Amino acid sequence: MKNRIIYKYIGKVLIGFSLLQLIPLFVSLFFKESILPFLIPLMISIIVGILLNSIKSESKRIYSKDGFFIVALSWIIISLISALPFVINKDLNYIDALFEAISGLTTTGASVFDNVEILNKSILFWRSFMHYIGGMGVLAFVMAIIPLSKDDKSMHLLKAEMPGPTVSKLVPSIKKTLFYLYLIYILLTTMEFVLLLIGHLNPFDALLISFGTAGTGGFSVLRTSLATYSNFAKWVVTIFMFLFGVNFNIYFLILMKDFKSAIKSEELRTYLIIYLTSTLIIILNTYQMFNNLYECIQQGFFHISSVITSTGYSIGNIDIYPTNARILCLFLMLVSACAGSTCGGFKMSRLIICYKSIKRDLLKLIHPNSVRTIKFEEHIIPDDTIKSTRSFLLLYIILIIIIMFIVSFDGYSLETTINAVFSTFANVGLAFNISSFSIFSDLSKIVLSIGMLLGRLEIFPIIVLFSDFRK
Amino acid sequence: MKNRIIYKYIGKVLIGFSLLQLIPLFVSLFFKESILPFLIPLMISIIVGILLNSIKSESKRIYSKDGFFIVALSWIIISLISALPFVINKDLNYIDALFEAISGLTTTGASVFDNVEILNKSILFWRSFMHYIGGMGVLAFVMAIIPLSKDDKSMHLLKAEMPGPTVSKLVPSIKKTLFYLYLIYILLTTMEFVLLLIGHLNPFDALLISFGTAGTGGFSVLRTSLATYSNFAKWVVTIFMFLFGVNFNIYFLILMKDFKSAIKSEELRTYLIIYLTSTLIIILNTYQMFNNLYECIQQGFFHISSVITSTGYSIGNIDIYPTNARILCLFLMLVSACAGSTCGGFKMSRLIICYKSIKRDLLKLIHPNSVRTIKFEEHIIPDDTIKSTRSFLLLYIILIIIIMFIVSFDGYSLETTINAVFSTFANVGLAFNISSFSIFSDLSKIVLSIGMLLGRLEIFPIIVLFSDFRK
Repeated sequence: MKNRIIYKYIGKVLIGFSLLQLIPLFVSLFFKESILPFLIPLMISIIVGILLNSIKSESKRIYSKDGFFIVALSWIIISLISALPFVINKDLNYIDALFEAISGLTTTGASVFDNVEILNKSILFWRSFMHYIGGMGVLAFVMAIIPLSKDDKSMHLLKAEMPGPTVSKLVPSIKKTLFYLYLIYILLTTMEFVLLLIGHLNPFDALLISFGTAGTGGFSVLRTSLATYSNFAKWVVTIFMFLFGVNFNIYFLILMKDFKSAIKSEELRTYLIIYLTSTLIIILNTYQMFNNLYECIQQGFFHISSVITSTGYSIGNIDIYPTNARILCLFLMLVSACAGSTCGGFKMSRLIICYKSIKRDLLKLIHPNSVRTIKFEEHIIPDDTIKSTRSFLLLYIILIIIIMFIVSFDGYSLETTINAVFSTFANVGLAFNISSFSIFSDLSKIVLSIGMLLGRLEIFPIIVLFSDFRK
Repeated sequence: MKNRIIYKYIGKVLIGFSLLQLIPLFVSLFFKESILPFLIPLMISIIVGILLNSIKSESKRIYSKDGFFIVALSWIIISLISALPFVINKDLNYIDALFEAISGLTTTGASVFDNVEILNKSILFWRSFMHYIGGMGVLAFVMAIIPLSKDDKSMHLLKAEMPGPTVSKLVPSIKKTLFYLYLIYILLTTMEFVLLLIGHLNPFDALLISFGTAGTGGFSVLRTSLATYSNFAKWVVTIFMFLFGVNFNIYFLILMKDFKSAIKSEELRTYLIIYLTSTLIIILNTYQMFNNLYECIQQGFFHISSVITSTGYSIGNIDIYPTNARILCLFLMLVSACAGSTCGGFKMSRLIICYKSIKRDLLKLIHPNSVRTIKFEEHIIPDDTIKSTRSFLLLYIILIIIIMFIVSFDGYSLETTINAVFSTFANVGLAFNISSFSIFSDLSKIVLSIGMLLGRLEIFPIIVLFSDFRK
């Protein structure tokens, strides 16, 4: 029998989540739309949450493994609940709604809607708000509101939910760490919101686009994504997409006025180099497709920011991109930006660790007696971290191949299949030649949804969950 | 300064290679065609070989690293020489000829010819004979003819040239190991040759197709590959392609009448399971495209054999395959069959070791205190082998991505680019929607050629070569 304390935790998470659901409820009241789409799931959250929370448990200890279990199961239950507004509002059937909800929570931004402009304001708000919740993590969000447990136990939950090969606390206390993380998150979001207002967006659009940028989600308010907004607004989003791809530790260092350490970051430098090189390549390769150089540069910066941070907004037709640009984009999607940010993919830091470990193994081949340690951000990386990072990368590739194989039965071209799988697994949402994911079969939508969860939770929690259920 | 003994070795290899070039020379005499295309490269081999062999060296020791160096440089020099017949015979320019020669020697079988039926018999012979030489390895072939050095030193060369994560001697003596390997190679080839004669092929075609099957090459004699041969011949080739994908150790065990050990082989069982499952999937997914079930089954078995062993023969139009069949084929190409066979790809055994290592790391995640060793073929795999196997796999993927990116500048579709790169890097030769590699630019042909060499020599020798040259 599973440790009961685990279900108690999930109960608390659900109660916390129901508080978050109050916000779209108020939005629907404000716009005088039906409140039922949000009231019913809210009630379900509360009831299930209270039931689970009332479970009596003797043990109070949770282990690292339990953290994975709680995170995985919480995400699945919350996804199931988050799909309900679309169904109750009769926008989608349940499978499509689940796809949309998981796409929202995992900050993917792949949509099954052909035209979002016909949707209710409150439903549009819910889509983008899911990005905002999911960006930093559902459990982190809940923990920021209500204390889940004593400090040391929460760390297991944070570790399981936060992206990246290693998770470090900014300050010794988890509560304070969460406080600073959310301070940075909300501060940046507010700055973007204000700048977008200055860029002539209406407050509703500005807020939702800020949510989508902050969570690196990508759900938009208009059919054409961000194409019709002002140039100023486009540059604002470009810059903020880039900023949300940076490890939040860097912002913490800046807040602490430790600029020296911030600039020293290896991951940040790699991110910058790859970002600028890729943008240059894209600009050089697409400039003959545009009327003027300005447009080409703007689109280059915007789309590389969108792709490398796994956001998925667009301001033009990327289907015209030549093959080399597509391969570059697909590669950037899989890698994505820094660990400790709200991005998807397998993260810059893992790429660096893998690169260094391959280099070490090659050097060992040439100088068999050499013993080398691998350093990252000035710390020696333990062998176990290297092992699990490489396992993660190999597993990442294997899972993508399996999902691709299943989705390929829909009969779309190899390229469309690859685009769909990369775009969802890496939580990007933008995909060449796919304007809506409604074209896929139910089976594919379910498999792609599982892929989004696997990608967002970085595989291990889901595997722990299922290996435990098998027992 | 590099150890001079290394160049002495390469000299010996070239002298040995010149003896092999006598055979196509005789073929050209037999068919009353010009002997110049073979005489000139033969003379170059002898002269360069004698010059290098005359280098005086004090040291007589070679190290594991030197083995990689000798193998890589020998392959490059021999490729450069093997391209000459096509140029002298005015069939191709030098870059195309080099592509064709490397494709031959690496047993890829990707061709730049649009129609091979217009070629001289001796040139056709040369193409297939390169497969036969390259299949077991150029150096192994040479070592089987002339003794290169004392037993213990040859092992470094064999290790560097033979595919697979670990190389074992069948018997304590390398000379005897080579004897048995070639006995098996020639015995199987002869059996196929005789059976093809029974299947109504003329002796010339039967010999060349046998060469191509044995080396898992894929150059054919007719424009339509093997489509016009008898059903019996098609089944013969199907079975022999499969057989040449088996680790030659198994045949040695059978020769020694140790059937029990042979059947126990983990790699063989995995190969069989993947082979049969894939064939079944292909048959189920293509049966509506054929007039009758027999044809569908025949083509299914033939093409899976061709793809999984990296041979690359075809008996029908594979361009009609649906996306799921394509993804399966691309996956099989990369994996390929057993180590210790003549196949390309990264080999079944590496897939098994990687799979087990990922499983171990996941178990460690669930049970942090567990210590597990990985067994393969009933032996414990040392941690260093696991590390280098995983490095190899990651490097394999990285190199494929880099090559794909360069080739993508030719502007073909993503799918065509992927097909071309997978097909050459994994030494297959068969590619969806590409009937001739002449469509690619010179830069792409050069990069794809380097990819074929990297794939055939399993990356490390080439890297050692270039890291040494940099010094």
